[in-house]
Amino acid sequence: MVAFDDLMAFQRETEALAQVMGRLGWDQETMMPKGAAQQRADEMGALESVLHARRTDSRVGDWLAAVDEGALDDVGRAQIRHIRRSHARAVRLPDTLSAQLARVTSRAQGIWAEARAADDVAHFLPVLTEVVRLKREEAAALADGRDLYDALLDDYEPGATAEGIGAMFDRMRPRLVDLRERIMGSARTPAALSGNFPAEGQMVLAREVASHFGYDWRHGRLDRSVHPFTSGSGTDVRITTRVDTAEPLGCLYSTLHEVGHGAYEQGIDPAFRLTPLGQGVSMGVHESQSRIYENQLGRSRAFCGWLFGRMGEVFGQAGAGDADAFYAAVNRVHSGHIRTEADEVHYNLHIMLRFDLERELIAGRLEVADLEEAWNARFAADFGVAVDRPANGVLQDVHWSVGLFGYFPTYTLGNVYAGCLYTALRAAVPSLDNDLARGHAEPATAWLRDHVQRHGGLSEPAATIERACGFAPHEGPLLDYLDAKFGALYDL
Amino acid sequence: MVAFDDLMAFQRETEALAQVMGRLGWDQETMMPKGAAQQRADEMGALESVLHARRTDSRVGDWLAAVDEGALDDVGRAQIRHIRRSHARAVRLPDTLSAQLARVTSRAQGIWAEARAADDVAHFLPVLTEVVRLKREEAAALADGRDLYDALLDDYEPGATAEGIGAMFDRMRPRLVDLRERIMGSARTPAALSGNFPAEGQMVLAREVASHFGYDWRHGRLDRSVHPFTSGSGTDVRITTRVDTAEPLGCLYSTLHEVGHGAYEQGIDPAFRLTPLGQGVSMGVHESQSRIYENQLGRSRAFCGWLFGRMGEVFGQAGAGDADAFYAAVNRVHSGHIRTEADEVHYNLHIMLRFDLERELIAGRLEVADLEEAWNARFAADFGVAVDRPANGVLQDVHWSVGLFGYFPTYTLGNVYAGCLYTALRAAVPSLDNDLARGHAEPATAWLRDHVQRHGGLSEPAATIERACGFAPHEGPLLDYLDAKFGALYDL
Repeated sequence: MVAFDDLMAFQRETEALAQVMGRLGWDQETMMPKGAAQQRADEMGALESVLHARRTDSRVGDWLAAVDEGALDDVGRAQIRHIRRSHARAVRLPDTLSAQLARVTSRAQGIWAEARAADDVAHFLPVLTEVVRLKREEAAALADGRDLYDALLDDYEPGATAEGIGAMFDRMRPRLVDLRERIMGSARTPAALSGNFPAEGQMVLAREVASHFGYDWRHGRLDRSVHPFTSGSGTDVRITTRVDTAEPLGCLYSTLHEVGHGAYEQGIDPAFRLTPLGQGVSMGVHESQSRIYENQLGRSRAFCGWLFGRMGEVFGQAGAGDADAFYAAVNRVHSGHIRTEADEVHYNLHIMLRFDLERELIAGRLEVADLEEAWNARFAADFGVAVDRPANGVLQDVHWSVGLFGYFPTYTLGNVYAGCLYTALRAAVPSLDNDLARGHAEPATAWLRDHVQRHGGLSEPAATIERACGFAPHEGPLLDYLDAKFGALYDL
Repeated sequence: MVAFDDLMAFQRETEALAQVMGRLGWDQETMMPKGAAQQRADEMGALESVLHARRTDSRVGDWLAAVDEGALDDVGRAQIRHIRRSHARAVRLPDTLSAQLARVTSRAQGIWAEARAADDVAHFLPVLTEVVRLKREEAAALADGRDLYDALLDDYEPGATAEGIGAMFDRMRPRLVDLRERIMGSARTPAALSGNFPAEGQMVLAREVASHFGYDWRHGRLDRSVHPFTSGSGTDVRITTRVDTAEPLGCLYSTLHEVGHGAYEQGIDPAFRLTPLGQGVSMGVHESQSRIYENQLGRSRAFCGWLFGRMGEVFGQAGAGDADAFYAAVNRVHSGHIRTEADEVHYNLHIMLRFDLERELIAGRLEVADLEEAWNARFAADFGVAVDRPANGVLQDVHWSVGLFGYFPTYTLGNVYAGCLYTALRAAVPSLDNDLARGHAEPATAWLRDHVQRHGGLSEPAATIERACGFAPHEGPLLDYLDAKFGALYDL
């Protein structure tokens, strides 16, 4: 067991340094003085070099070769599975390619921001071409003969395949387009909230709902940032939210979303702290936690009834005439261009568009030069409206500029998983609607912690969901939930 | 020049990682969730291992041997001087001793805190004995035949010697004791401030005075912490302060003190960023900046006049009847037991007591078992009152528990340097009192930046002060300043 123990001790230090990197990222978005950006890049670059050297350290390969897996328990074997996978990825990637990717994506992100601000696709295309070329090289180095896109996907959702996801998306898409069209044809046109909602009150409510959903303040904190995010694992898991005084739902539902991510990390078995099992097992399972807190629980009629009353107390009004109108406003379906502002019906259509396009790009079947046209055609077909400008179309997301190919589908995987978990949760916690009507979700968190969160990286993603639900995950529960919820809301 | 360039590139990464360590320390004291302490220790431990490996890396020795110093300019030679010194210290220290020191001081700090809370010296003595033994071992490893105490001092004040400091302190002590006794015999007994000063107002004022003293918010920020401190170099230099609603001067003068430290780091030539020259050259010179901002400028009659008026505006009252009473309260001399609460007259007597005792401990001429008695006897002699309990005596400071032997004298060195700089500053900036009477010190900061701060680690500490003042630093200006100021205040 010497090899295993040495490997785990080494890994624990690596995980600790990776946590430090996370703290720097958090600080950069929340606390860092404006003039410190260049120095922070130097600091993170130095730490990244240290992490890279550890991830490719030849001793890791030696220890892995020496470990007797037969002598390990389930936990030990799962640790080895994670270490083996990430070490294999790290050593397959040539150092020069990693360095090139870091340099080019850093430049590309700046150019993307300029292009989006100026609605100038042509400004972005040359560097995007370079990013796609390098990502295809990366995929080829990692693929070991498998599908190129799968090799990239593997970093975010181990075990998933483009073929499997593609088939599922193809089953989902017509039902979602049909639901969307029926909603748009409905006579019901709920109003958005109106009014002014001071920032202090929003933050008071944000902290309150975080507490009610089981967020652990002893091991976390809530701050404001431009884009909400969750940072850290183990006993230091921080979340952020944003505030718009004209629109309070963004703050509240961003908070619930991040509370889902945060509760997952906080809920993992403390014995896994600073090991490969001590963090969410995949982006898809992570997103299942954020989505079920935000949508299935947070946007339920029961919780909206409580929130309507509480907003009245905090702000003197909730921006809607009664709880039903408030619930309708929270779940208002609208034909927007922007993914991050999309409702539950449109959201997955945004993802499918991106998944299909990026899969074609990585396969080499779509040229970057043709990307905008492909985007616009698909958008018009699925959303029933035209893209009005590139900033609302192909330039809206940062992901491709920073090389995140294979990441998008995990958002919809998360929604699908959340649909499955919600079915199981309702059966397991009969008090759920009563809890939510009092503004509370601790019993739901307790069930999720016990059945999903505490296991961390112990099982593969799909197996993690299957163990919790008792059935293999599939799109049915999510689609049925959407049909039922929006059918009732829009009188379909 | 290949060796020099390689060495500097390596060093730059080490300095960047050292900055990361600083960010973790800052976060721990200001932002970290309470339940994250153990994990943070693991994170800092992992990073410390990385830093230790870099500091003792054999390539550094090879590069140093290969550098042709004759081909370097002043800046290059100064870089090499710093790297050579810290590399020599790092390689002289056996790894086992460093690890032992880290383990024992970590435990000792906890025991010290318990002992102080319980007023139980006996609880602290065994672990302090162990700390002293390890520090003597460390000193022996570093000393290379020189004085043991000097080897420790060298880490905080390169070039200073216990003999030189001891001789200066022996000249200062009778004059300070005499001044103290005359003040205590004076018929003047100024009152402390009274009233309630809400925290928000204190922080508004703290930010205002920081701005007026030239603190650069683009490269810094101000937060609250239990003990005020400054963290970071280069373009990210953060300060903290504390707030007591019954006593506003602690917040304001702690802020000015940290603004001094912060302005020093912010004022260093940007070309030195992330190099050994890119930080304050010694603890003594650092303290000269914090002390001149806090005392010679901040506690001046001119600035107190402005502050009295401004506090009236912010709080509705300043806690004193008029500006003269306010000035007297700010500079009130009182026979307290606690170093950190001491006035300008008593402060250096606190330091001399600690310097003499720790010098004896390291020399092996004083046993830890006899430390309390020695402390109490010296305190009664110099302060005219008895120590009432160990928490107000030998147990009051954290320094010895964490192994900071050789650090205390730099506080008084800083005061001596501040006295010298103040003489030169008054001659160079004739508008000083007028500026301070308007609440501003930017012209003083400009002079200090130009004559001290921007040079960073370019020259040795005493040479840094001598270049700014035009004379070799000595205790005369500080003692004359104290005589004049307190003579007038107490009608001596």
